[in-house]
Amino acid sequence: MKRIGVLTSGGDSPGMNAAIRAVVRKANYHGVEVFGIYHGYEGFIKGKMELLDLGSVGGIIQRGGTKLFSSRCPEFKEKKYQLQGIEKMKEAGIEGLVVIGGDGSFRGAYELTKLGLACIGVPATIDNDIAGTEFTIGFDTALNTVVSAIDKIRDTATSHENTFIIEVMGRDAGDIALWSGLAAGAESVIIPEEPYDLDDIITRMKRGEARNKKHSIIIVAEGVMPASKLANMLKEKAGIETRITVLGHIQRGGSPSAFDRVLASRLGARAVELLLEGKTSRAVGIKNHQVYDYDLREIFTAKHKADTSLYTLSKELSI
Amino acid sequence: MKRIGVLTSGGDSPGMNAAIRAVVRKANYHGVEVFGIYHGYEGFIKGKMELLDLGSVGGIIQRGGTKLFSSRCPEFKEKKYQLQGIEKMKEAGIEGLVVIGGDGSFRGAYELTKLGLACIGVPATIDNDIAGTEFTIGFDTALNTVVSAIDKIRDTATSHENTFIIEVMGRDAGDIALWSGLAAGAESVIIPEEPYDLDDIITRMKRGEARNKKHSIIIVAEGVMPASKLANMLKEKAGIETRITVLGHIQRGGSPSAFDRVLASRLGARAVELLLEGKTSRAVGIKNHQVYDYDLREIFTAKHKADTSLYTLSKELSI
Amino acid sequence: MKRIGVLTSGGDSPGMNAAIRAVVRKANYHGVEVFGIYHGYEGFIKGKMELLDLGSVGGIIQRGGTKLFSSRCPEFKEKKYQLQGIEKMKEAGIEGLVVIGGDGSFRGAYELTKLGLACIGVPATIDNDIAGTEFTIGFDTALNTVVSAIDKIRDTATSHENTFIIEVMGRDAGDIALWSGLAAGAESVIIPEEPYDLDDIITRMKRGEARNKKHSIIIVAEGVMPASKLANMLKEKAGIETRITVLGHIQRGGSPSAFDRVLASRLGARAVELLLEGKTSRAVGIKNHQVYDYDLREIFTAKHKADTSLYTLSKELSI
Amino acid sequence: MKRIGVLTSGGDSPGMNAAIRAVVRKANYHGVEVFGIYHGYEGFIKGKMELLDLGSVGGIIQRGGTKLFSSRCPEFKEKKYQLQGIEKMKEAGIEGLVVIGGDGSFRGAYELTKLGLACIGVPATIDNDIAGTEFTIGFDTALNTVVSAIDKIRDTATSHENTFIIEVMGRDAGDIALWSGLAAGAESVIIPEEPYDLDDIITRMKRGEARNKKHSIIIVAEGVMPASKLANMLKEKAGIETRITVLGHIQRGGSPSAFDRVLASRLGARAVELLLEGKTSRAVGIKNHQVYDYDLREIFTAKHKADTSLYTLSKELSI
Repeated sequence: MKRIGVLTSGGDSPGMNAAIRAVVRKANYHGVEVFGIYHGYEGFIKGKMELLDLGSVGGIIQRGGTKLFSSRCPEFKEKKYQLQGIEKMKEAGIEGLVVIGGDGSFRGAYELTKLGLACIGVPATIDNDIAGTEFTIGFDTALNTVVSAIDKIRDTATSHENTFIIEVMGRDAGDIALWSGLAAGAESVIIPEEPYDLDDIITRMKRGEARNKKHSIIIVAEGVMPASKLANMLKEKAGIETRITVLGHIQRGGSPSAFDRVLASRLGARAVELLLEGKTSRAVGIKNHQVYDYDLREIFTAKHKADTSLYTLSKELSI
Repeated sequence: MKRIGVLTSGGDSPGMNAAIRAVVRKANYHGVEVFGIYHGYEGFIKGKMELLDLGSVGGIIQRGGTKLFSSRCPEFKEKKYQLQGIEKMKEAGIEGLVVIGGDGSFRGAYELTKLGLACIGVPATIDNDIAGTEFTIGFDTALNTVVSAIDKIRDTATSHENTFIIEVMGRDAGDIALWSGLAAGAESVIIPEEPYDLDDIITRMKRGEARNKKHSIIIVAEGVMPASKLANMLKEKAGIETRITVLGHIQRGGSPSAFDRVLASRLGARAVELLLEGKTSRAVGIKNHQVYDYDLREIFTAKHKADTSLYTLSKELSI
Repeated sequence: MKRIGVLTSGGDSPGMNAAIRAVVRKANYHGVEVFGIYHGYEGFIKGKMELLDLGSVGGIIQRGGTKLFSSRCPEFKEKKYQLQGIEKMKEAGIEGLVVIGGDGSFRGAYELTKLGLACIGVPATIDNDIAGTEFTIGFDTALNTVVSAIDKIRDTATSHENTFIIEVMGRDAGDIALWSGLAAGAESVIIPEEPYDLDDIITRMKRGEARNKKHSIIIVAEGVMPASKLANMLKEKAGIETRITVLGHIQRGGSPSAFDRVLASRLGARAVELLLEGKTSRAVGIKNHQVYDYDLREIFTAKHKADTSLYTLSKELSI
Repeated sequence: MKRIGVLTSGGDSPGMNAAIRAVVRKANYHGVEVFGIYHGYEGFIKGKMELLDLGSVGGIIQRGGTKLFSSRCPEFKEKKYQLQGIEKMKEAGIEGLVVIGGDGSFRGAYELTKLGLACIGVPATIDNDIAGTEFTIGFDTALNTVVSAIDKIRDTATSHENTFIIEVMGRDAGDIALWSGLAAGAESVIIPEEPYDLDDIITRMKRGEARNKKHSIIIVAEGVMPASKLANMLKEKAGIETRITVLGHIQRGGSPSAFDRVLASRLGARAVELLLEGKTSRAVGIKNHQVYDYDLREIFTAKHKADTSLYTLSKELSI
């Protein structure tokens, strides 16, 4: 293999640039050229790409977002376009592809492997919801962004003795809510993986009040319900006034944390090794701090599980 | 004067603690005792207070929020309660009061001066909307928080080539929107002080697109309209899809910037000097980098003006 | 067990407060009282302590340093003083002790267990050098502080096309240098665990220059040599001018990262469980993301090993 | 004037990129082209430059350092090389030059104006030591970096009850030391503008100790003496043990603060206006929050003065 491609796809996450850098440098280290494909699968279909040399990935390890851009590409679902993209790769002499993204991106990669293109997936999404890896690239940074935002809101909550409901990202996976809730000392955390109990939330608030603690922070993952709905429920059921903040897209951006940069470097480099070893249809991941690889199809069968021991601990520590 | 009081009132802002510290230490430096009154005017009415010594304000200069808490106090509008509070102060031997807060807080302070209590106002609010001072305590920190959030959102906007509308604080004053828009390089800024022109906003976006710049950031001050409304307008009028983020309460919190700590230290200290000079019904402020003082009643007659040269500049630089 | 003690000892690290909070709240959750012992083993000897209730550990999870203070205590090496401390604990009804600190602190705890006091160690040090746990409390935060400092220095290095040598903490353990070097994209990293090769460092710099990359970052762990010495060696051997920065004590402080707060919460809580289960002379740690416990004496026999695969990777990616 | 040049020179400072962006966009707004000259006066002499269009300054407003690089250029002192550079500019059709930098850079610009090239200076240096402007671009960011570093060190100082001496930048100007000392609540501050009194420093420390405050932070500007020297003096004179940290080059880097970005945008834009108005040998600055301009030669006659009222205040508040 003398030339490979790399693309980023799906929602961007901090550390994608560090992963791109690792792919390029590791490949170059082994004498392999790397083409950066722009705008995810859209660029793949259209052959929008450019040679990335050592210098072109200099100074990007600390940058949020993705230098290669990302975009949704509905056409890519059609086989005809997939084949067109593969043709473009062939024309350019690209023999393998590293796909950096979430599980939607991995599904796309899997389709391509069925059509004969060697593909390796690198898990990057702030949601930490990919089965097969304990951590995804971007999760740690998003977590720090969320926790730092909650710290700021707590300043106001404490000063005004108010209750705040903070809505964080996570449609099916509660990891951001769970970890940030524990890290920020939230009084209650609501995640998709566990049924919530409105009475318990109210009880906790009243218990705090009884010992003269008048402010409270409740974290809710967007997948369970919007913060505004919870606010209404608390008002109707217990007459409790709350203020809400929806953290939104600030969760996706920012300079990646040290942990995410190291993870991205390791996973990106390993993806290149796999291609050079002649592997395909694999994804890389981290398990017990070791880089390893697994079948891309695991995303169809396995499901990421939140560590619910953190949920229990969070409840115990916010008595 | 051998004993004074200090309270914080209204929305909290970063630097209030630095101002409290300055009041205590400057007073102590002159051999005057300071009582901290809790929960703003509520504590004033009820006499909830505590002696603050040098140690009690150690380690707070870098903390967001306010150590003395803040709260709304509807009763305070009634003269009977104002008199009750003044009685509590007399009982405690408190001869003068430093009120740290926004213009609502200053109005309260003015009422108290009419009843004979010496009061000095220290302007602290993130909105920078107090006539008589060029900067309020907390504005600079809020600005940095907003700009840092926009930087993060721009990572995603750039990567996905989307347009984002970001709603920031500011009911009547556009300073946060204006300064953060200029500092973050926003493509359009909408503030209460200037009429907005939807066509111009659309034109700017299309002009950017024409030279292949596909992402865009629009800042809107909450006082003009909610981000969601603007999103609808852009969709209806020009078919433009946008994403919205409401920054909300993260804007109030956080460790104060160096600038805010210095400002708070200077203003807090000067407030004490004024009391010791026998002044009352004055507020402190900064003008041409010099600390000065002005009549509390200026808030009734004068109005803070946003520097609209920044608005023009912002437009010119985001062509 | 109805009452336990907690102390912090050795160099402070971010997350110690989160661990203290977890000890207090977990114990309270089980109906057990916690006394905070001030100034490490010095307070232990002298019986300087105070009951910590739920409120007393509110608002500390995000704070750097340690609320309980830390200090060196040479007397503690003498058995007489150890016995005196145990007597103080007995008088206060304290039946078990959680010791938060590094391996020196663990040695002290081990001595106390031999004298009959139940002790559990919680590993907290920025150096990540404790055998038996994959991560120590504070390492992740220190890493982010270091990486953020290097990012800043790289701004200048790039602008001026200079080479910078940055000295980071780590006497025997190179983890901070290793991880931060990889995360910040340093051109060379020098750690105690691997022999360094001056010729290789020079070659790398010249290779970068040959492709027109004129700046360079070299990280050196303090345990290998001071930055100034390396600067002299580079000058003498190859005529290379460098600038040096010794990061120093900023590495110890700051608000703990989300990761460190979660780790501290988990380990602190588990330490309490162990005491309640009647265990002694154990330390808690994290292994494959699971909290577990191990014999305190492992610090005498085992040695933390840096993950040298990161060292190799770092070299490959900085070609 | 249809084409101008812009360069950065001297030590880099945060906000230089924002100034470059403003120069390019403001000029483009008026239909004027801008060439970016690389490596300061070195690039000027050699004609190393490139057309900067709107897109080329996109996404740089938030970046530290300077996109145009900076370097020392001893040859530039010789008239022959100055003339060579002016020839290069003529060849390229460049009729005016914006020089972003400190007073050394301004001196160079002044020499060029004498040879007939229109030049406008934009003050950018973290030291805030340019007469004629109240603030230089980069000072506010450096200040926040320093204060945030001191906050971290205070975590350790407080936890261990140690005294730290922190050496900050500032050869002739004490602004960084003075403002950061006030903002971080340092117990003592030593600046070039004021004689220091070792006895007073010792007295302050002992007074703190007497009321049980055992840690202390002393800030010293590098221009007065190295931290290590002060440490020796304190040890010899009073037996006081201290720890030292030299902040070094982290002070120059980092994403510019909101304040610095706004300042850089205003000053950069005004510099272009001046060129278009046919002015030369002027520098832009900020005075009473208004942008204004003054004779470049003021750097020969006037001297920036630190606001010593802050020095007095700092002493009063750290009793």
